[in-house]
Amino acid sequence: MTLTNSPAATILNRQQLKDLLSGFNPDPKGREAYAIIEALYPICRSITGEGVRQTLRLLQQTIPLIVHEVPSGKEVFDWVVPKEWNIRDAYIKDSAGERVVDFRKNNLHVLNYSVPVHRTMSLAELTPYLYTLPELPDWIPYRTSYFKEIWGFCLSQRQLDQMKNDEYEVWIDSTLQPGYLTYGEYRIQGLTDEEVLISSHLCHPSLCNDNLSGVATAAVLASLLDDVDLRYSYRFVWAPGTIGAITWLALNESRLSRIKHGLVLSCLGDPGLFTYKRSRHGNAEIDRVAEHVLRSTGHDFELMDFTPYGYDERQYCSPGINLPVGCFMRTPNGKYPQYHTSADDLTFVRGPALADSLFHLLRIIEVLEGNYRYLNLNSKCEPQLGRRGLYRQVGGTNNTGVEEAMLWVLNYSDGQHSLLDIAEHSRLEFSEINDAAKLLARNNLLQLIDPIRSSHLG
Amino acid sequence: MTLTNSPAATILNRQQLKDLLSGFNPDPKGREAYAIIEALYPICRSITGEGVRQTLRLLQQTIPLIVHEVPSGKEVFDWVVPKEWNIRDAYIKDSAGERVVDFRKNNLHVLNYSVPVHRTMSLAELTPYLYTLPELPDWIPYRTSYFKEIWGFCLSQRQLDQMKNDEYEVWIDSTLQPGYLTYGEYRIQGLTDEEVLISSHLCHPSLCNDNLSGVATAAVLASLLDDVDLRYSYRFVWAPGTIGAITWLALNESRLSRIKHGLVLSCLGDPGLFTYKRSRHGNAEIDRVAEHVLRSTGHDFELMDFTPYGYDERQYCSPGINLPVGCFMRTPNGKYPQYHTSADDLTFVRGPALADSLFHLLRIIEVLEGNYRYLNLNSKCEPQLGRRGLYRQVGGTNNTGVEEAMLWVLNYSDGQHSLLDIAEHSRLEFSEINDAAKLLARNNLLQLIDPIRSSHLG
Amino acid sequence: MTLTNSPAATILNRQQLKDLLSGFNPDPKGREAYAIIEALYPICRSITGEGVRQTLRLLQQTIPLIVHEVPSGKEVFDWVVPKEWNIRDAYIKDSAGERVVDFRKNNLHVLNYSVPVHRTMSLAELTPYLYTLPELPDWIPYRTSYFKEIWGFCLSQRQLDQMKNDEYEVWIDSTLQPGYLTYGEYRIQGLTDEEVLISSHLCHPSLCNDNLSGVATAAVLASLLDDVDLRYSYRFVWAPGTIGAITWLALNESRLSRIKHGLVLSCLGDPGLFTYKRSRHGNAEIDRVAEHVLRSTGHDFELMDFTPYGYDERQYCSPGINLPVGCFMRTPNGKYPQYHTSADDLTFVRGPALADSLFHLLRIIEVLEGNYRYLNLNSKCEPQLGRRGLYRQVGGTNNTGVEEAMLWVLNYSDGQHSLLDIAEHSRLEFSEINDAAKLLARNNLLQLIDPIRSSHLG
Repeated sequence: MTLTNSPAATILNRQQLKDLLSGFNPDPKGREAYAIIEALYPICRSITGEGVRQTLRLLQQTIPLIVHEVPSGKEVFDWVVPKEWNIRDAYIKDSAGERVVDFRKNNLHVLNYSVPVHRTMSLAELTPYLYTLPELPDWIPYRTSYFKEIWGFCLSQRQLDQMKNDEYEVWIDSTLQPGYLTYGEYRIQGLTDEEVLISSHLCHPSLCNDNLSGVATAAVLASLLDDVDLRYSYRFVWAPGTIGAITWLALNESRLSRIKHGLVLSCLGDPGLFTYKRSRHGNAEIDRVAEHVLRSTGHDFELMDFTPYGYDERQYCSPGINLPVGCFMRTPNGKYPQYHTSADDLTFVRGPALADSLFHLLRIIEVLEGNYRYLNLNSKCEPQLGRRGLYRQVGGTNNTGVEEAMLWVLNYSDGQHSLLDIAEHSRLEFSEINDAAKLLARNNLLQLIDPIRSSHLG
Repeated sequence: MTLTNSPAATILNRQQLKDLLSGFNPDPKGREAYAIIEALYPICRSITGEGVRQTLRLLQQTIPLIVHEVPSGKEVFDWVVPKEWNIRDAYIKDSAGERVVDFRKNNLHVLNYSVPVHRTMSLAELTPYLYTLPELPDWIPYRTSYFKEIWGFCLSQRQLDQMKNDEYEVWIDSTLQPGYLTYGEYRIQGLTDEEVLISSHLCHPSLCNDNLSGVATAAVLASLLDDVDLRYSYRFVWAPGTIGAITWLALNESRLSRIKHGLVLSCLGDPGLFTYKRSRHGNAEIDRVAEHVLRSTGHDFELMDFTPYGYDERQYCSPGINLPVGCFMRTPNGKYPQYHTSADDLTFVRGPALADSLFHLLRIIEVLEGNYRYLNLNSKCEPQLGRRGLYRQVGGTNNTGVEEAMLWVLNYSDGQHSLLDIAEHSRLEFSEINDAAKLLARNNLLQLIDPIRSSHLG
Repeated sequence: MTLTNSPAATILNRQQLKDLLSGFNPDPKGREAYAIIEALYPICRSITGEGVRQTLRLLQQTIPLIVHEVPSGKEVFDWVVPKEWNIRDAYIKDSAGERVVDFRKNNLHVLNYSVPVHRTMSLAELTPYLYTLPELPDWIPYRTSYFKEIWGFCLSQRQLDQMKNDEYEVWIDSTLQPGYLTYGEYRIQGLTDEEVLISSHLCHPSLCNDNLSGVATAAVLASLLDDVDLRYSYRFVWAPGTIGAITWLALNESRLSRIKHGLVLSCLGDPGLFTYKRSRHGNAEIDRVAEHVLRSTGHDFELMDFTPYGYDERQYCSPGINLPVGCFMRTPNGKYPQYHTSADDLTFVRGPALADSLFHLLRIIEVLEGNYRYLNLNSKCEPQLGRRGLYRQVGGTNNTGVEEAMLWVLNYSDGQHSLLDIAEHSRLEFSEINDAAKLLARNNLLQLIDPIRSSHLG
């Protein structure tokens, strides 16, 4: 083959990602992701503060991500990086001195970002500061107040029902002071500088599916891809929701044009169906790839059109940014009762679900990586596949699967259609089409025509 | 707010149309429209003549429309304004001198536009001049012969069955002479000279739903809008069907480019579902607005694609005119048995149906008037709504309705999408989207970008 | 009428094709096509050789087609014209001298294109050279080996089951030598040089539906059209599958731009539903015409999108050729059990099915021929049809069918829409629309605007 050493040959001969998929062993990968969640679960995270730093430090055991610190007061588009919030302890004590609500038992008990307070109050005075879920009386809600300096406690309805008319000592030992917003980033250099963005929010405290599942899946995915020759460069971002994504976008605005595809990862550990929420483009390559991969599983799944609420796709898909970034989930936010409650705990997320999420992410990446356009070098009539040993010898029977895939690739490799286009058109799986294209290219019947830009090619 | 006195401020602060809708009281409005129909019902109208003039004179009690007279013989495109037809009396008398068919009892008895005749004829001789509905034997059909000079009588099958072999005196005291074609017009000046055309045919004699319902609804609508500050100018036309619309178009050809939207009104008093027949464009703004309004009612309704038969949309949507004019009806022509018979009388149309038609027309106008495009002035990421008091203080819960509407408006106000586009995209009601846009604009987060052309702005 | 002697008048006054359709008598036409199949059935055809020549000679009794001979070794795109194959006899004899497999009984018994062989072999040695259909044990399969020089026999499973352990004499008296590839062609000159291609493969031996049905239908169709004044020129090609179509395309490459529409004909004699397989364009005029004709029959039918396997549409629709050629069939290849077996015999195809196929082909041609664009010469409002005698005199009733068709033609004859566009839009049949257009054109209300290019117009 004359292609050896050329970029095209590099692409045609790459095998690592395929091996990664065929050798993917769900059990250890699910356990690895679950173990990360277990380690991160107790930490009290918020949009700023030590919880975020501690989380990123633990993730560095899986992937050597870089920690970025952005000072309070920094203007980022229409926003300002807020003060840093830290908390040591918090409780409501009754007159007998017993902690009836105790931050040390569950960090959800504090309204996240509460300003410090130390007062004695009657139950009636205290009640406006208490948040419960009357319809889910055993669970503690997760509530926040990032941009209004107030305080409060979250507790189960049962806890509240047991609180008598008494004088309570209320104590939140937090600080809200100039400091930093912290986020993590990891980049894998591919054959080209075109990037795939993988983003997950890490601001939620002890909540597993939303979003330690996304945080951990991203980390394991990064570690898997780290050893693989890739077409695209991959940029992983772990940042607090909303303000973190806005900060990252503001600081990286000049580099956004490199991002060709992206996914927000969240809610990936529950046992529900997969859900893909399309980018604002609606029909971007990432949208079509994700749909193709989910459709080829044979299982049910959900597709959602873009909406301007949800996770950080809100920011990535704001009209002035408008990146082709979708959101990959199992059961979406707000669609499971445990959402934003203490029931989103270590029993709600599962290793097998995490492994399955990882596997589907790898399949999405496989299609993205292989979705080139080729040109049929014998476009007038079919080439004679038989004399190249690519066609059955005895005719009169139906085409074989490989023959069909080759005929589809030859017929539609007219410079307009990518392999994904051909897979969709033929209703064959992308991997069949990709294999056929590589076989034809090795036989000099196809030529790779997508631009291959890279500083990494010798 | 810095917008005071600017055209944009004028638009944002307008409240009258909204008040008109929220204060709309169906009972008196339905009674008002019904009373107009009652007053117009006895008159024998045709495409020309005193009946039309008398009708327009009565309508002037509701709205000070202008009466136009176009002389017979005037060439209007491929047509010529016909002679003026007037009729005083008509009957068929039996040999005993009894009027067995009597124009004074119902003006449908005369074939509309019949030439004068006075003869004595046997029943056999007379029969070819008689029109009945054998399958609806109690009803008199409505028949016309505008462009062929013949005569005839319409009667119920029962009447015909009772006519014996006898000598009959046939008498039609009509004239067909050079005169005028008469139509009415009323124009409301809006902020801009761009016009909305509201057209109804008034040539039918004693037929209520087709089309005194359209004629009366248009008059009451004009009187309601007359006191309101409006974006568009509104031109109401009451003209005879076909030849009247053709005449009006021929005389106003140079002004047609001002017409941005239009509706033909007919069959608006029966108790059936609403029907909207799309303009020839098929997806003109008026088509989308009418569909949006009907869809948001929660009731069933019918949508029809354009067909080149029906009412005067035939002319407005002829290929060389091609205005974006749809047709707003309840049960369409030909789809109710009373259509074009004496049973389309004062018992067939109802005040509540007329009021409901009026209300929906006002809602269509509300959407047309408010369907501007805005530009998000903070298009990179979301603006911080919280510090402007536009967002809930405690997070962790789902977005409220207003927040969702604001997020949709912000995300899609990229210069491409109108508020109707955003309403359709978000599946929210136009009024929610419009309210959110005004709220954001008052907070300087959006800017109105649709051109505002007007000589009326100070 | 001022149009006499003009090309437009020629078109408007043509009546022959319409007469052909209205006078079409299915019985004799079905018998004629069936008789051709009967005559051709015994011949052992292949992609080259005397069988093809003999077939074309017999077809010349129906239509004076021209026989082309292309020498072996000729390069045609990626292929080379193969050696010519001829066969006189073949058998497997048992040790008692009895022909247990006999080419003279059915020419399917020989693997088509087998090289000569004369050997004595045990059953065990022979078995790898034998092809059967275990699941259809009474039928002989049709198998080929065009491009690999091997030999073999095809037989029913029952025959194989009866073969004992014995020594067999194997004899194939074939030759594979330099010679020619043979195909037939017939062209009918129309008003213009723009061509319609009708192609059928004639390489299959004793198989009736695939494809003597296509071969015979094409011949009868050519004979029917030969006497008719036509807009398009029609080029009929009878050639061996794949290599024949490739050869024809390679030799005629410079003339392909004249081909505006085309059909591959196959499997047209079975009693199943019609199937139309779209061209690669997917929405070419031929695709829309075929669908319109099939839809207007009121019977079920099948539509298939283009796939790059099937018949010679594979070549006509290869990306570098990309002609608008569909495939017209009844039950498609591979979808009936008799396909490519000895059961595709003279009992499987029927005269009435062949006649029905012919009739539908004529209707497709009728639409292609008549699908002009016209321009409404009175595009502002409707023209007054009444004074031209084209409209009913007494109004108040619904439009008649002819009036509706005229209104559709007038409204959409804006220079953009063809008559087929209008037929689809109005959901009327093409013939109704075409008749209305001709009536309007004769009344000078429409003008034919499609270019009429021809050397044949005086």
